[in-house]
Amino acid sequence: MPIRTGTEYIQSLRGRKMKVYLFGEIVKEPVDHPMIRPSINAVAETYDLAVKEGDLATAKSSISGQQVNRFLHIVESPEDLINQNKMQRKLGQLTGTCFQRCVGMDALNSLYSVTFEIDEKHKTNYHKRLVEFIKMVQTENLIIGGAMTDPKGDRSKAPHEQEDPDVFLRIVEKNDKGIIVKGAKAHQTGCINSHWIIFMPTMRLEEGDHDYAVVGAVPADAPGLTYIYGRQSCDTRSMEDGDLDAGNAKYSGQEAMIIFDNVFVPWELVFMNGEYEFASMLVERFTCYHRRSYVCKTGLGDVLIGAAAAIADYNGIPNVSHIRDKLVEMTHLNETIYAAGIASSFQAHPTKSGAWINDDMLANVCKHNVTRFPYEIGRLAQDIAGGLMVTLPSEKDLRN
Amino acid sequence: MPIRTGTEYIQSLRGRKMKVYLFGEIVKEPVDHPMIRPSINAVAETYDLAVKEGDLATAKSSISGQQVNRFLHIVESPEDLINQNKMQRKLGQLTGTCFQRCVGMDALNSLYSVTFEIDEKHKTNYHKRLVEFIKMVQTENLIIGGAMTDPKGDRSKAPHEQEDPDVFLRIVEKNDKGIIVKGAKAHQTGCINSHWIIFMPTMRLEEGDHDYAVVGAVPADAPGLTYIYGRQSCDTRSMEDGDLDAGNAKYSGQEAMIIFDNVFVPWELVFMNGEYEFASMLVERFTCYHRRSYVCKTGLGDVLIGAAAAIADYNGIPNVSHIRDKLVEMTHLNETIYAAGIASSFQAHPTKSGAWINDDMLANVCKHNVTRFPYEIGRLAQDIAGGLMVTLPSEKDLRN
Amino acid sequence: MPIRTGTEYIQSLRGRKMKVYLFGEIVKEPVDHPMIRPSINAVAETYDLAVKEGDLATAKSSISGQQVNRFLHIVESPEDLINQNKMQRKLGQLTGTCFQRCVGMDALNSLYSVTFEIDEKHKTNYHKRLVEFIKMVQTENLIIGGAMTDPKGDRSKAPHEQEDPDVFLRIVEKNDKGIIVKGAKAHQTGCINSHWIIFMPTMRLEEGDHDYAVVGAVPADAPGLTYIYGRQSCDTRSMEDGDLDAGNAKYSGQEAMIIFDNVFVPWELVFMNGEYEFASMLVERFTCYHRRSYVCKTGLGDVLIGAAAAIADYNGIPNVSHIRDKLVEMTHLNETIYAAGIASSFQAHPTKSGAWINDDMLANVCKHNVTRFPYEIGRLAQDIAGGLMVTLPSEKDLRN
Amino acid sequence: MPIRTGTEYIQSLRGRKMKVYLFGEIVKEPVDHPMIRPSINAVAETYDLAVKEGDLATAKSSISGQQVNRFLHIVESPEDLINQNKMQRKLGQLTGTCFQRCVGMDALNSLYSVTFEIDEKHKTNYHKRLVEFIKMVQTENLIIGGAMTDPKGDRSKAPHEQEDPDVFLRIVEKNDKGIIVKGAKAHQTGCINSHWIIFMPTMRLEEGDHDYAVVGAVPADAPGLTYIYGRQSCDTRSMEDGDLDAGNAKYSGQEAMIIFDNVFVPWELVFMNGEYEFASMLVERFTCYHRRSYVCKTGLGDVLIGAAAAIADYNGIPNVSHIRDKLVEMTHLNETIYAAGIASSFQAHPTKSGAWINDDMLANVCKHNVTRFPYEIGRLAQDIAGGLMVTLPSEKDLRN
Ligand SMILES: Cc1cc2nc3c(=O)[nH]c(=O)nc-3n(C[C@H](O)[C@H](O)[C@H](O)COP(=O)(O)OP(=O)(O)OC[C@H]3O[C@@H](n4cnc5c(N)ncnc54)[C@H](O)[C@@H]3O)c2cc1C
Ligand SMILES: Cc1cc2nc3c(=O)[nH]c(=O)nc-3n(C[C@H](O)[C@H](O)[C@H](O)COP(=O)(O)OP(=O)(O)OC[C@H]3O[C@@H](n4cnc5c(N)ncnc54)[C@H](O)[C@@H]3O)c2cc1C
Ligand SMILES: Cc1cc2nc3c(=O)[nH]c(=O)nc-3n(C[C@H](O)[C@H](O)[C@H](O)COP(=O)(O)OP(=O)(O)OC[C@H]3O[C@@H](n4cnc5c(N)ncnc54)[C@H](O)[C@@H]3O)c2cc1C
Ligand SMILES: Cc1cc2nc3c(=O)[nH]c(=O)nc-3n(C[C@H](O)[C@H](O)[C@H](O)COP(=O)(O)OP(=O)(O)OC[C@H]3O[C@@H](n4cnc5c(N)ncnc54)[C@H](O)[C@@H]3O)c2cc1C
Repeated sequence: MPIRTGTEYIQSLRGRKMKVYLFGEIVKEPVDHPMIRPSINAVAETYDLAVKEGDLATAKSSISGQQVNRFLHIVESPEDLINQNKMQRKLGQLTGTCFQRCVGMDALNSLYSVTFEIDEKHKTNYHKRLVEFIKMVQTENLIIGGAMTDPKGDRSKAPHEQEDPDVFLRIVEKNDKGIIVKGAKAHQTGCINSHWIIFMPTMRLEEGDHDYAVVGAVPADAPGLTYIYGRQSCDTRSMEDGDLDAGNAKYSGQEAMIIFDNVFVPWELVFMNGEYEFASMLVERFTCYHRRSYVCKTGLGDVLIGAAAAIADYNGIPNVSHIRDKLVEMTHLNETIYAAGIASSFQAHPTKSGAWINDDMLANVCKHNVTRFPYEIGRLAQDIAGGLMVTLPSEKDLRN
Repeated sequence: MPIRTGTEYIQSLRGRKMKVYLFGEIVKEPVDHPMIRPSINAVAETYDLAVKEGDLATAKSSISGQQVNRFLHIVESPEDLINQNKMQRKLGQLTGTCFQRCVGMDALNSLYSVTFEIDEKHKTNYHKRLVEFIKMVQTENLIIGGAMTDPKGDRSKAPHEQEDPDVFLRIVEKNDKGIIVKGAKAHQTGCINSHWIIFMPTMRLEEGDHDYAVVGAVPADAPGLTYIYGRQSCDTRSMEDGDLDAGNAKYSGQEAMIIFDNVFVPWELVFMNGEYEFASMLVERFTCYHRRSYVCKTGLGDVLIGAAAAIADYNGIPNVSHIRDKLVEMTHLNETIYAAGIASSFQAHPTKSGAWINDDMLANVCKHNVTRFPYEIGRLAQDIAGGLMVTLPSEKDLRN
Repeated sequence: MPIRTGTEYIQSLRGRKMKVYLFGEIVKEPVDHPMIRPSINAVAETYDLAVKEGDLATAKSSISGQQVNRFLHIVESPEDLINQNKMQRKLGQLTGTCFQRCVGMDALNSLYSVTFEIDEKHKTNYHKRLVEFIKMVQTENLIIGGAMTDPKGDRSKAPHEQEDPDVFLRIVEKNDKGIIVKGAKAHQTGCINSHWIIFMPTMRLEEGDHDYAVVGAVPADAPGLTYIYGRQSCDTRSMEDGDLDAGNAKYSGQEAMIIFDNVFVPWELVFMNGEYEFASMLVERFTCYHRRSYVCKTGLGDVLIGAAAAIADYNGIPNVSHIRDKLVEMTHLNETIYAAGIASSFQAHPTKSGAWINDDMLANVCKHNVTRFPYEIGRLAQDIAGGLMVTLPSEKDLRN
Repeated sequence: MPIRTGTEYIQSLRGRKMKVYLFGEIVKEPVDHPMIRPSINAVAETYDLAVKEGDLATAKSSISGQQVNRFLHIVESPEDLINQNKMQRKLGQLTGTCFQRCVGMDALNSLYSVTFEIDEKHKTNYHKRLVEFIKMVQTENLIIGGAMTDPKGDRSKAPHEQEDPDVFLRIVEKNDKGIIVKGAKAHQTGCINSHWIIFMPTMRLEEGDHDYAVVGAVPADAPGLTYIYGRQSCDTRSMEDGDLDAGNAKYSGQEAMIIFDNVFVPWELVFMNGEYEFASMLVERFTCYHRRSYVCKTGLGDVLIGAAAAIADYNGIPNVSHIRDKLVEMTHLNETIYAAGIASSFQAHPTKSGAWINDDMLANVCKHNVTRFPYEIGRLAQDIAGGLMVTLPSEKDLRN
């Protein structure tokens, strides 16, 4: 039976045999770990929103013929792309953090068109395999992690030139059942909260890099996978009593490093196998979708603007002109980010596969603004808040 | 015997009977608390620097006739002001954090000239009392906390108009021995690491605010004082094993809230008592010195620029042009802050008391740049560092 | 016969009896004045583009049932709004200056919906009159100037409170034929190059301002109208020989002040008459359309980016990294402006009249970016160009 | 008799036989040309200020033993450097434009120390010759133009590698009387208003560039020199009647290109002759002084801030908060520029020759801020001024 609600999703994560390390120790049940759970709650919202606001967070897929979660939908029009952005902003507002499903969504979409074009050239059948995989995850309503970033070692060298061959993920064996891969992927958003991991090359490859030109899907609890949890600022506060000091107590993001220690992938889940000249196309399409997915941050911006306005109220100065000017400026910057996302999604064009892709120039504009404006939005919020932002005593002292 | 070294200073803090709360509980010995100790280490550096670099961190005082720690020196020339800035940058480089002695330094200096002018008008003898106090702390080489910021309640009302009369510190009783004060001071830098606390009004006062026009000095362990420790980002990491995750493991800043519950101050330590029309002069002179004291942050900037350059080295890309451009831009912003501090100190003028004060326009310029550029410097550092800044696993996982 | 080409348009302007002052003297034939002609050439491009790229610069109007110039079209969908933006950028690229037709376009569109809503409330018939007027200008393919900005006098007072009653345009007489208006409008884009002028109130009006709540259309050469030409930077260079020093020798913008000295308007051309409470709705809708019309400046941005790249080529340094970075940054800023325009146009909604209007929040975002980024784009262009930008000798010296 | 006042200076320029081209024609008497005269007026202020404010604009020189114009003074202390900055700001305020004497001042100072060090290494006697020259110009109180920038041709090639050997100025002949040089210098500030021109190499030279390693002084009307006047924005407005439209009607800057067509320089005025390894030292010292000389622009900033405040007054809105905020921000940026100049001058060190030189890191900081902030200052000024800045009719229309 497919997963429907956030609660059912959380239930689906229990009892898996995953090797997750945190603070040097294996985590028995990630679902119950106080530092991990908030990140699971954030993903759960993507299910609940689909139930509550179907127009926004689901779409009718021509692939499975079903109404599916929008994060699993292959985009069929500019409107689909724009609706992704609207859903992302909404979830940013609801969770105030990273809800972890965009990487998988953007990976499925970029693979959809790239496998189509590889097949066209090489007479392979990756696209058909991928379509089957998509049908399955749409039907069961699953979470996909997208694993692209390799550790990379010396940035001035190609994969096959590196001293340590494992700083980029690669095929170490092939047989008639499938392939065996080795390496690692870093900074993996929501991977421990995923059901499946899709791994992909991280950059343009060249001759000699054949073994690194590999794409495949593995269950998140496949044998050979090890996860090492990434730290975040103030992460242990969710392990303290109370919920004020944690800031965002209920929700959080998640990144981990995944080690692939000879992981087996059957042929029907292999979507690229040596066609190195398509690595850059895949990376470019993925980043094209993804750089516009950052409009999720405007949802967080909305939360911050609201919080700043609330503090000004507490201080009895909501109508003072410099406070209003700062709130307007925060809004201006936040909407400038949003506009680039929407415009990029709108200026889309169809790929050969029929899936649509947004405008890459404007996607880059969106990304650049996301790497600039939040610092200024944060600065203004701190200015409005005053000193207490950085000197407030603990919740326990308050209760005491 | 005066304190000389950092080690002697740390020793001097032991065994005091201070009421310090942290996470809702009394701290037995702050010196040994893993979350407090790094802040004490940072102050200790101000002693060790005076031993190692006497020209930079000490000065000959005309008041006590001795070579004193520069943080206790009343400035006698523009050079003295500039040397404060140079010492501040150096200590920022050495500790990478707030070393907590500037507030006291700036408080002593502003009080020096303001008490002189109050006496001139009101025939009081605050200045003489203050000079005696300064002689004593210079001789014993002590730490002074400057307590100015009141909780303030409704920001649109004067102290005497507030619903709760205690949101600004005030005199509740006077007798022939001295005065008794009540209220609180918020965001107090290094107060628990101080030997003495000087309290002062936080803003322009008007008729009706007489009881709030009060300045005095109390030992940091005076009866009636309670300290509530302020939280900082990632503060509990210093309580974890290892020292990588803490970032700056050895040093940290400190802010706490101080509650004054009927604290007695003998007349010889009272430096203002009802002369409300001098409150704004005191605040203005204090902020004039202090806004330029923020050049300490250029020392932290130096550390960040160095760290960013080191990461680029590790990644094998030190000579890539966009990396060099970013390091240059970080340096440009950092030096722009510094320049305003130095120029303000240089453009000084003497007050009636003989003590010199820096240029207030340029001090404001310095402060404004400090509230803007570090965000951009930090943004560039993150850009150079890449994703690991926010996703790195814990030190324990590394050692594992 | 309707005007079709730029040449026909220029011909249509000849022989009118307009009172145009420039440098204190009456201009006999503006079409032949070397300082005015470039601005006429820029408008002419809006005709030629409609001939050459019909999809972009014309639209099928439901009002006249004809394929009309897009500048005269009442927008019937978000696509219409987006196509306005695309046409504006294109004309910015072609002329490198202001082509002067947006104000009229935005005025017609805002009046279309506002007159509809006035009629609904007051049972007037302004909307029908306006529709007739639109049919006529669509059929004859004419230029409309939009005259909103009054001189305004003391900005802290309402129109009826001003010392000089004429600093805002107002009705001074009504009779059964029509109304007579008096006052002035400042900064009027392309007014001398227009066939008709539509005048409108410039801001929210209140009780007492009835006479100022007036909208009407007059032929550009109506008796009582006087034009005083506005100066622009380096304007007389178009009167020198040669065409290098003029920069943009062929095209320019135009603004003039219009004095209304008892100008008669027949009732069928009056579109508001005392309904002061609709003034703010009109101003808001006009500015909503107009603030997004500024994407025309991204067309100029394109020209500047191209020019900067060309200079770098001449200097033999097109591939130097800091030059490339600057060109990328110029592009980033330019596209950020564009994105906000497109996103605003896309996020449109229909008004009661059926005409669509774009998103006002994002229109403001577009406007704010237009008031910021061109300064930075210009700064970078100058940096790439080097000193010759401001010290180059004259063309005559070159030819000599 | 030495020149004393501005009037005497203007007189001193008359009747020289200079070949000056403007708009393709020879200018008979530059002093009387309406487009050139304002630039002469600006230089004249540097004389008048020396008369009116001797402390600021003159200094006692150890070279000639006289009280000389500060622009001709070799700096003997940090105070001298700081006083240069104060004088520069003052003259910026008085003229609102470039007063053209800084290049010569910075050239004399950098040559002073560099010739000393060449002599030390090569046993030449350039320094002595230069000292004689300085004595003479100090005594006669003359204007020096500093000619460094060559046309440079292909920026990726060294001087001796260029296709056209004359794109860098070079020695074409040497004999026992002196040398003959050929080439050109571009963007020459105030050269036509100078009495002497000192030419210098424009960048680091290498082996093979011997002939380009040349420094010398020539009278501004030496045979073989031709000047081609550079255009400036709105330059011909000073040739119109009236003085409103010209903006700054009385004063202006001046740049011209100088062509050196076989110009003879006697040995006693040659200060470098083939010592190519000192070219970079000369350029670096010159730019070190000069990048901090740009604090003159803060004087112009003062004028702009005042003008913006005046317009707000006219509009009846001086106390509106957004206007005040903008004026404060303009001031903040202006003072940030100033601070870097002052700090650089203060952090000076003596060279081997005894002349002092300012801090080069902070001089670069000053320069970078000068290339950024004036754009933002201008943007804010325009925002305060409103539309009339770019649409105002001509003065003649006003008078009409
Ligand atoms: C919060 C977060 C979530 C993430 N989630 C995911 C995820 O779900 N899946 C996934 O696959 N990845 C994820 N990433 C990884 C992300 O895609 C990478 O961080 C990003 O691509 C940069 O790579 P990096 O961190 O290795 O930095 P680097 O590539 O090492 O970059 C560091 C600096 O070096 C420069 N540099 C690097 N190489 C060169 C070169 N050859 N020449 C010149 N300069 C160079 C860069 O410009 C940068 O300034 C996530 C990252 C973050 C921060
Ligand atoms: C790290 C740190 C260390 C510190 N150390 C010390 C110390 O050692 N000693 C000490 O005395 N203080 C210290 N302070 C306190 C510091 O001086 C105050 O934070 C600062 O003065 C601002 O006061 P506030 O925090 O109460 O903010 P507020 O004054 O509440 O300001 C919050 C916002 O409200 C606005 N605002 C406030 N009042 C008005 C008004 N009437 N009209 C319009 N706008 C208004 C402000 O502009 C700001 O945007 C420290 C602060 C920090 C952050
Ligand atoms: C190139 C150009 C073309 C134009 N074309 C047209 C056109 O075709 N048709 C047309 O109708 N108009 C046109 N305009 C006019 C334009 O709409 C106005 O310039 C704009 O609305 C600003 O009005 P203003 O120039 O009167 O400035 P002001 O309104 O005087 O503003 C000047 C400053 O004062 C401030 N200010 C003004 N009033 C107040 C107040 N009450 N409280 C606080 N602050 C205040 C403003 O914020 C601003 O900072 C054009 C302008 C330009 C520059
Ligand atoms: C108002 C004004 C007054 C002046 N007064 C004087 C004066 O009195 N005396 C005098 O001697 N000079 C004067 N100058 C000239 C000034 O010093 C030069 O403009 C400046 O040094 C830049 O040189 P350039 O104009 O040739 O530009 P270029 O050097 O051509 O620079 C143009 C662009 O190309 C880049 N570039 C150039 N070469 C390279 C390279 N090899 N690699 C990578 N990038 C490169 C630059 O970074 C810049 O972005 C004046 C200039 C101005 C604007």
